[in-house]
Amino acid sequence: MPENDKQSLSMVTCTAPVNIAVIKYWGKRDEDLILPINSSLSVTLHQDQLKTTTTVACSRNFQQDRIWLNGKGEDISNPRLQSCLQEIRRFSRKRRNTGDSTSDVSGVSHKVHICSVNNFPTAAGLASSASGYACLVYTLSQLFGVENEQLSAVARQGSGSACRSLYGGFVQWKLGEQLDGKDSLAEQVESESYWPELRVLILVVSAEQKSVGSTSGMHTSVETSQLLKYRADVVVPSRMEEMIRVIRERDFPAFGELTMKDSNQFHAICLDTYPPIFYLNNMSHRIISLVHRYNQYYGETRVAYTFDAGPNAVIYTLQDHLPEFVQVVRHFFPLEVSGEEFVKGLPVCSADLSEELKRDINMEPTPKGIRYIISTKAGPGPCVMKDPNHHLLGADGLPKKTV
Amino acid sequence: MPENDKQSLSMVTCTAPVNIAVIKYWGKRDEDLILPINSSLSVTLHQDQLKTTTTVACSRNFQQDRIWLNGKGEDISNPRLQSCLQEIRRFSRKRRNTGDSTSDVSGVSHKVHICSVNNFPTAAGLASSASGYACLVYTLSQLFGVENEQLSAVARQGSGSACRSLYGGFVQWKLGEQLDGKDSLAEQVESESYWPELRVLILVVSAEQKSVGSTSGMHTSVETSQLLKYRADVVVPSRMEEMIRVIRERDFPAFGELTMKDSNQFHAICLDTYPPIFYLNNMSHRIISLVHRYNQYYGETRVAYTFDAGPNAVIYTLQDHLPEFVQVVRHFFPLEVSGEEFVKGLPVCSADLSEELKRDINMEPTPKGIRYIISTKAGPGPCVMKDPNHHLLGADGLPKKTV
Repeated sequence: MPENDKQSLSMVTCTAPVNIAVIKYWGKRDEDLILPINSSLSVTLHQDQLKTTTTVACSRNFQQDRIWLNGKGEDISNPRLQSCLQEIRRFSRKRRNTGDSTSDVSGVSHKVHICSVNNFPTAAGLASSASGYACLVYTLSQLFGVENEQLSAVARQGSGSACRSLYGGFVQWKLGEQLDGKDSLAEQVESESYWPELRVLILVVSAEQKSVGSTSGMHTSVETSQLLKYRADVVVPSRMEEMIRVIRERDFPAFGELTMKDSNQFHAICLDTYPPIFYLNNMSHRIISLVHRYNQYYGETRVAYTFDAGPNAVIYTLQDHLPEFVQVVRHFFPLEVSGEEFVKGLPVCSADLSEELKRDINMEPTPKGIRYIISTKAGPGPCVMKDPNHHLLGADGLPKKTV
Repeated sequence: MPENDKQSLSMVTCTAPVNIAVIKYWGKRDEDLILPINSSLSVTLHQDQLKTTTTVACSRNFQQDRIWLNGKGEDISNPRLQSCLQEIRRFSRKRRNTGDSTSDVSGVSHKVHICSVNNFPTAAGLASSASGYACLVYTLSQLFGVENEQLSAVARQGSGSACRSLYGGFVQWKLGEQLDGKDSLAEQVESESYWPELRVLILVVSAEQKSVGSTSGMHTSVETSQLLKYRADVVVPSRMEEMIRVIRERDFPAFGELTMKDSNQFHAICLDTYPPIFYLNNMSHRIISLVHRYNQYYGETRVAYTFDAGPNAVIYTLQDHLPEFVQVVRHFFPLEVSGEEFVKGLPVCSADLSEELKRDINMEPTPKGIRYIISTKAGPGPCVMKDPNHHLLGADGLPKKTV
């Protein structure tokens, strides 16, 4: 047990990253085990900009398992949360019984208190379930001494894409073949330092209405889309091979084009679902159009978009093209009130736009179309926070006042 | 020659209808002959609301072929226009040479003047190429004595879907197998009187921007969409069989559901195209949502939408459900200025909406979202106008002043 091992309270705090898929996961072949119908591949984003922090404490004095999310007490009986807790405890006991564990894992029989916060607003429209479940499972594993190789299958049962947030850099979640899902695991393709020029922008647009949740959306797609099976069985396997190759070759134009095509195909499947699901709105359409016109101006793919289950765009580009493209976004989506912070996160140099470029793009500016941009890059997997000041729970096992 | 056969000028005027596909045509296997990659099926709309009128005159005194569209002189050298002219003249000469023709078709060697008008505004966003080419080819055939069975292949070479406007009621355009396209023909499934309860509404929405044309759009889809081949080869053949069956059974819920699914799949293919094509805008999405919520309220499919290459919705429903649904549309898409004519075409009775229905649909009204509605039904194929007052060309072979 990492600390306080002679006392009644043990506590670990970890952080975990958000990931953005470039080959999309959409559809389960097993709803209970959360086994996908196709492999997927994502880029793990840097935790300096986007992360979940989770503290887990266990104590023989705790009466029941409890959880607080972003400062608010939540229901611990959520079935996916229960799956993760049960699975981690099962692995921990198995390890203890076989004598594999080098640490004292007696805490596994105690109740836990879980406290978790995101450093990004829910309004950013980023699915927090991936970083959230990755962080929970990773933190529990640190507390109860479970090996990293086993975490993929546990995190996956919290939220499918959470297994990809267990690694930094470029990560694939392999479909697997076994019925029990033991081979449906995430693995790192390349680390975050492999392609340092790659940069990421999240364009947060003004959403009008709540979208269909991804769990029920993909369920309906599997039930009703005739095109989805063809995508999963025929299209994705070759795209996975190609995506891994172009990442290894650091071939941005090929990476960008494939990323855009796969995002579009995912949204096509949503439209082929009955009733149809729309995650892209008019503003998403404008961003897509802007990206294609920008690339067309240069005669090469310098910028690529991808969209998850919402209208916000995630942009991949290279360091060299970043300042100009951000200026293009500023020009075509001007802030209503100037002076507001438009770009958050990693600094972006200023750049001038040529009149020719603006003329060639030939779009009407849309004021207030984009609320702000988060500027980031690829980053590492989950981290353990050694400094006890980072704990979200106090010595009494309850959330600190500052949370 | 139908009239003036002893004089130098011969003239015929015909009308032809618009058709709206319920199984969509998207993609050519031969761009020159305009051969599709899948069969399609449409409902011919009534000409009282939507039609093209075309007058063709021929005279040994005409120096060249000329055309006027909606009052404006246009370039006759358009390749598709030339294809239609050449093909009709070829069929006419062949018939004359084999002695099949009962009429004097000497005019076939003369130049023609063509004048064509639509009774619906271009702003209605209805593809006028189908009714336009159907009307042109039908009128030429009347003037030059070409048999109806041969017109499908000629109209198809003007605009693919034009061949479906040669018949009234429910019409299929069979894919065909031959390389020369001789078996890629339209044929009537059932006449317009077969299902008299079926009604049609066109919801004209406010379009923001011009969409990609369907010719270039379907070309790009064939080149880039991986899902399109699967749709054409696997999905559509069984949908064609099912659609013909449910029309014959007058099974509205099944007809409506299949119509909506096929519209959605067509737009999914557009999104899977690279760069992606968007024909649906936020207003289209709202109409789709309204239709599904309305149907859900009643627990059955009472209303169905379909969208072509633009944001306007075409609604199919039954006579009995029409008044209430129109009132639902009025309620959720209120006119900014009341008193304007909202419903054009066939009259629609007024209806009251229950509070429960409004509450259950649970959508924010969108003022000015829909500009107006055209109310119509299934109708007959092309007609010859016997009354010379209907001619669009004067005795001098030039458009009348009123055109």
